[in-house]
Amino acid sequence: MTQMASSGGDTSADNVGERGGVSIAPRPYRLSEVSGPLDRAELTAIDAWWRAANYLSVGQIYLMKNPLLREALRPEHIKPRLLGHFGTVPGLNLVWAHANRAIRRRELNAVFVAGPGHGGPGPNACAWLEGTYSELYSHIPRDGAGMGALFAQFSFPGGVPSHCAPETPGSFHEGGELGYSLLHAYGAALDNPDLTVFCVIGDGEAETGPLAGSWHANKFLNPGRDGAVLPILALNQYKIANPTILARIPEHELIELLRGCGYEPIVVAGDDPATVHQAMAAAVDGCLDRIDRIQRAARFGADGAPASWPMIVLRTPKGWTCPPVVDGDPIEGTFRAHQVPLPAARDNDSHREVLERWLRSYRPEELFDDAGQPVPELLDQVPAGDRRMSANPVANGGMLVRDLRLPDWREFGVEVAAPGGTKHEATRVLGGWLREVTRRNPDNFLTFAPDELASNRLQDILEVTGRDWQAEIGEYDVALDRTGRVIEVLSEHMCQGLLEGYLLTGRHGVFTCYEAFIHIVDAMFNQHAKWLDASAAVSWRRPIASLNYLLSSHVWRQDHNGFTHQDPGFLDVVLNKKPEIVRVYLPPDANTLLSTYDHCLRSRHYVNVVVAGKQPQEDWLSVPDAAVHCARGLGIWEWAGNNDTVGSTPDVVLACAGDVPTLETLAAAAILRDRLPDLRVRVVNVVDLMRLLPADEHPHGLPDREFDTLFTTDRPVIFAFHGYPWLVHRLTYRRTNHGEMHVRGYKEEGTTTTPFDMVMLNDLDRYHLVMDVIDRVPDLREKAAGLRQEMVDARWKARAWTREHGEDIPCVAEWSWPEVSL
Amino acid sequence: MTQMASSGGDTSADNVGERGGVSIAPRPYRLSEVSGPLDRAELTAIDAWWRAANYLSVGQIYLMKNPLLREALRPEHIKPRLLGHFGTVPGLNLVWAHANRAIRRRELNAVFVAGPGHGGPGPNACAWLEGTYSELYSHIPRDGAGMGALFAQFSFPGGVPSHCAPETPGSFHEGGELGYSLLHAYGAALDNPDLTVFCVIGDGEAETGPLAGSWHANKFLNPGRDGAVLPILALNQYKIANPTILARIPEHELIELLRGCGYEPIVVAGDDPATVHQAMAAAVDGCLDRIDRIQRAARFGADGAPASWPMIVLRTPKGWTCPPVVDGDPIEGTFRAHQVPLPAARDNDSHREVLERWLRSYRPEELFDDAGQPVPELLDQVPAGDRRMSANPVANGGMLVRDLRLPDWREFGVEVAAPGGTKHEATRVLGGWLREVTRRNPDNFLTFAPDELASNRLQDILEVTGRDWQAEIGEYDVALDRTGRVIEVLSEHMCQGLLEGYLLTGRHGVFTCYEAFIHIVDAMFNQHAKWLDASAAVSWRRPIASLNYLLSSHVWRQDHNGFTHQDPGFLDVVLNKKPEIVRVYLPPDANTLLSTYDHCLRSRHYVNVVVAGKQPQEDWLSVPDAAVHCARGLGIWEWAGNNDTVGSTPDVVLACAGDVPTLETLAAAAILRDRLPDLRVRVVNVVDLMRLLPADEHPHGLPDREFDTLFTTDRPVIFAFHGYPWLVHRLTYRRTNHGEMHVRGYKEEGTTTTPFDMVMLNDLDRYHLVMDVIDRVPDLREKAAGLRQEMVDARWKARAWTREHGEDIPCVAEWSWPEVSL
Repeated sequence: MTQMASSGGDTSADNVGERGGVSIAPRPYRLSEVSGPLDRAELTAIDAWWRAANYLSVGQIYLMKNPLLREALRPEHIKPRLLGHFGTVPGLNLVWAHANRAIRRRELNAVFVAGPGHGGPGPNACAWLEGTYSELYSHIPRDGAGMGALFAQFSFPGGVPSHCAPETPGSFHEGGELGYSLLHAYGAALDNPDLTVFCVIGDGEAETGPLAGSWHANKFLNPGRDGAVLPILALNQYKIANPTILARIPEHELIELLRGCGYEPIVVAGDDPATVHQAMAAAVDGCLDRIDRIQRAARFGADGAPASWPMIVLRTPKGWTCPPVVDGDPIEGTFRAHQVPLPAARDNDSHREVLERWLRSYRPEELFDDAGQPVPELLDQVPAGDRRMSANPVANGGMLVRDLRLPDWREFGVEVAAPGGTKHEATRVLGGWLREVTRRNPDNFLTFAPDELASNRLQDILEVTGRDWQAEIGEYDVALDRTGRVIEVLSEHMCQGLLEGYLLTGRHGVFTCYEAFIHIVDAMFNQHAKWLDASAAVSWRRPIASLNYLLSSHVWRQDHNGFTHQDPGFLDVVLNKKPEIVRVYLPPDANTLLSTYDHCLRSRHYVNVVVAGKQPQEDWLSVPDAAVHCARGLGIWEWAGNNDTVGSTPDVVLACAGDVPTLETLAAAAILRDRLPDLRVRVVNVVDLMRLLPADEHPHGLPDREFDTLFTTDRPVIFAFHGYPWLVHRLTYRRTNHGEMHVRGYKEEGTTTTPFDMVMLNDLDRYHLVMDVIDRVPDLREKAAGLRQEMVDARWKARAWTREHGEDIPCVAEWSWPEVSL
Repeated sequence: MTQMASSGGDTSADNVGERGGVSIAPRPYRLSEVSGPLDRAELTAIDAWWRAANYLSVGQIYLMKNPLLREALRPEHIKPRLLGHFGTVPGLNLVWAHANRAIRRRELNAVFVAGPGHGGPGPNACAWLEGTYSELYSHIPRDGAGMGALFAQFSFPGGVPSHCAPETPGSFHEGGELGYSLLHAYGAALDNPDLTVFCVIGDGEAETGPLAGSWHANKFLNPGRDGAVLPILALNQYKIANPTILARIPEHELIELLRGCGYEPIVVAGDDPATVHQAMAAAVDGCLDRIDRIQRAARFGADGAPASWPMIVLRTPKGWTCPPVVDGDPIEGTFRAHQVPLPAARDNDSHREVLERWLRSYRPEELFDDAGQPVPELLDQVPAGDRRMSANPVANGGMLVRDLRLPDWREFGVEVAAPGGTKHEATRVLGGWLREVTRRNPDNFLTFAPDELASNRLQDILEVTGRDWQAEIGEYDVALDRTGRVIEVLSEHMCQGLLEGYLLTGRHGVFTCYEAFIHIVDAMFNQHAKWLDASAAVSWRRPIASLNYLLSSHVWRQDHNGFTHQDPGFLDVVLNKKPEIVRVYLPPDANTLLSTYDHCLRSRHYVNVVVAGKQPQEDWLSVPDAAVHCARGLGIWEWAGNNDTVGSTPDVVLACAGDVPTLETLAAAAILRDRLPDLRVRVVNVVDLMRLLPADEHPHGLPDREFDTLFTTDRPVIFAFHGYPWLVHRLTYRRTNHGEMHVRGYKEEGTTTTPFDMVMLNDLDRYHLVMDVIDRVPDLREKAAGLRQEMVDARWKARAWTREHGEDIPCVAEWSWPEVSL
């Protein structure tokens, strides 16, 4: 019936149901006599759990009424739209049942990650059996009425999704987009020495790049400091319409592949329940014993060879226990069992009859009492209180999150006697503060980087810790450390996924990345933002620490690495998500970066995107001024403007957001002050990009009246922007003065060149900004024709210089405020 | 000197240079006596090539003058900014040299993929030695002057990037963002039975998820139909600042990992040139012999067991042959050799001296004659003509691309007697046409899908082909085929990367994907778009076929899969790229989808993004009408409007883009026609989103006058849009009537619900559109207060219905144009 060697059970054989080769329903099975670690009572009990969870799963997929089959199934009992994926569910329920046995016997502190897509019915069922569902959702009690409500809400309007989600008790992993289960599991285990994460990985998911790379996350798991991940590769052979690669390579290749990733796999295979239960119990025992030995050796012994961690390959039929044949097509054990095995159950009498027999094959009358409550034999298997995986607070990280011990950022600020008098590498200054953050929070703060920590100038962190590394350490390796608080791996997916897992389980962290390559995790960001948004609406979820990005080596200073390294578009992706969740900051100098990051590390439940340069650049604001400016999020820099007195209206507003645009804007302002001293020039700097949005569109949005005061209602605004210019238009198109908003930003004009040539290529340079002013301020074009020509000439001169010398012209490279750079 | 067991060579020992433990320069080495496949002459010759390429690589990184060291190095000979990564270059040059030997001996048709980042100097050097550089760039002849120009342009303003790029002869792989080398290699090999792809993978790149997943691309490579990929894992141990995982796991684990991926690896390790040359020659011979056997068996024998393909693990020191020690720090063989080993060579006399000794250690006087031309011993190693990897037309795919044989799409169109009278699944209709495209183009058209071909309703393609699958085929697998023209793997990265490789080497294809999950390849799209943009400026590159996306299962019909599956933001990412490159189409029905796709498959050098639904939906336009409408890109649907006579100005414009927004707009128009018969309503449908852009911003941009004619200059426009609403504002903010543009689109309001509830959640539904009209058209609010209340009530009724019944209210689900759905 399936492609697996049967071991004597009879789950899949059947001779009832619709005849004539049309459809065959499964029949109730008896547990065969197979020896193993489970005695008969244990075997019977664990199988009862599995049957109960499977029954409850099938019920969720199909039924909107008659949950206990107290009457024959009628069309109106069945949902009009049948959703959810049964194929993976029996495997999930099997793992949960066996995890519970281990939790009880070993007093494990464990959580569950369901990797396979749309397997939600399984964890929902287990959480209901454990009572958690009813504790968290009082309208879904653990009885017949509650079972009906549990069934009805599944994949139903106003109900819960078909995959694990924020609504799922015990889940900190969204099962919507595939590829991240193992990363979330490892992220949860970091700094959680007593935790065991049972992580089920679907063989479909295993084909994704992020999952394929994440097997090596074990190179960062310290058996002394961290908890354990027990990966269970659920090899049920099929995706929606295709077999899976890992199920179609010879088993010896699969074992080699997993060994090569540093695991010692145990294969559990079969389609006879008793056989699989015994094998699974033995495998789980064996794996947990091995984990115990590895952890004891690390915690009480010497630093030995890197551990080879145990894992399980679970090879069972797709849709195990579902109808073997429907309408003449084999279902159980084939790709057709992936989703809903009986899609016409509502309207087709024979499908509905098979469905009823299928449900009854789990013998619900043995599992639920007259009130629909689980029988004591099932309840006995539920771990106590928080030890239930569905109730473990680790999976509701906001319950556990502690404030960071943050050093006063002001003490790490740079001295600024006058604007522009000194230069610093902003991210290096931040690195000094992050070093102290790391030192003061030795067990709940981590920094992640794709081999870019030092490149992004955060290497001062390494003064108090090393880079986490559990593989071999070579003679010339530096700063590697078995207990390092920095995780560097050349995979943005791994950095993002591990950090997500770490945050979702109640800790804090930073991900620093080259700006252009953060697009690699666009999709992961999207999913995390959706999780934050959806979980905010779940009453029992508590806010978690924000996901903090520090993007450096940004578009304007990737001149030397060229076009492929120039992309500020992550901001556009971020701003598509819910305003309540996302924040974007563009601090113009070192002190504003410090102040911004202090704010980010105190915040909860946001995604904070901070873009900052690593090159030496002018310090504009002192510590107190930076604090005020960042608190406001944007403001007039009166010292940089000209004749811009309070209450007056300037002739032109020079707005800027981002460090390089700010530099160019100030250099332009200096020219205007010198050459057009009568012109009233206002300089507005924007740190918090969200302030540009209308107040009713974002919590940080500036009220229109204040916006109009800053940007005027009718004067030209020359806006020098870090990213793609239309982003500013998208943020401000509702503002009074939007028609006068002229934005310069990155327009995909890039090449291998110099920093100043990069801004010239995109017309964001000081000279072009001056030209923009001359072109936009009424009557100035004629009056300042000479200055305009000077600007044109200066651009040509600067361009020619770079072509000849390979670096920027000295009047630009050595410019300092408030000189005129000509 | 390095961490490798030395085999008797003396490349790394030295006793000249700066003393006092400060800096040590390498000294010239002699080839040791090591037996192997190379006789002494061959060994000497191949080593000469390697030295020449290394010399030319170091020269590119450092020198702007004095390329042949005809005088002592002075500061002004050295570039002010030292860029490029030397660490990986000797490995690349070694592979190139040995590939050339194989090409000559075996008359191979071969191309080269340089995976390691910033390794550009190597392939540049080899292309110059082969003469291709000079053929393509006449200002860089193959002599001393040309050498000087080659050096000076590298990573210099106006010059070439530090990684392989469109400017690099023989490269079809951009080396900027890491992770895609093996996918591009496999994509090139598909349908190229005579091709061999030498693909060098850096051990840094190997940590990325996309690369980790792509080892399994061999499951889709048919040794009969396709060419071969020879992966060379360059294990030089280090990234920028860290060791690599694959270099720090035990070798037996590495071998198991690669075997588990279906490869039979040969390890070449050492730091003695002669030893490595002999081992490498033997390894390349062995691998190519094995490939030959596999291909012969497949082409002349029976369908045997899936092949285990050969590959090479090349374990040599990072920065091999560079200074072993600089300023007291070990360099060669450590992470410090990753980038520029002597960063102060211009200003620091001892660094400059070491640099000069380093350059002279390659003995340039033996390699280049008085004119600076390569000596005959080097030229003898250059393969003939197009067999040079730097000149192979496969790497300039536009040279090879042939027009597809396209069936007439009109014959596949659906009959439309009247608008909205019938329904079809648009993508299924397209599938019928693509079936014929597949049949007529059996060797240069492929379809890629992440297990979503049938889900996206393109399964008719499987009537004429199967799914490519080279692993085991199981009893219940269907439509798998060793020569299938559909590649399905649950990895968007693999689909995208294989298709890119296939297109870049001159073929055609389609990638169909769920809309939300296409974000997984945002970064890959960005890089491909940048390649297209940059290559258009390279005179010898020819336009390649467009990259065609078909995004279905889109945001509005992912109601059942819930919030995680709802994301139309790929359009925003796409529109950030160069207008010349990107196209976005939102065909509203089956015939417009056919017409659009016919256009896409005829186009060149674009990225075409087409979003279309797979659910049964109204056919609006007949074949002739669809042809006209798509040719225009947008237009008035007079039959849908009311009192909208030519030359008149309507009271309101209902604009729509996307199939579901079009449906809702027409349902709203029907209500308005019935209830407000005096209102002049214009319906404008947009297929080609680019037409909304100003004419000076995009080649498809509509001139302002035409835009104003369609959208009026002052009447309210209610725009129902497929994606995030602000995208329409970003496209239209310069238009006269932008102030009256009111856009409804997706606002991240999603959940598990029904199709109509999804549009209601985002205020894009017919009832809300009518309310928008009432609220925006002057004086209508009072006059139509009753209708407005009807709309409010209808929304509540529809919402309540879904909550109770789990499906849409019949008056919506069964609505047909031009009924009123109340």
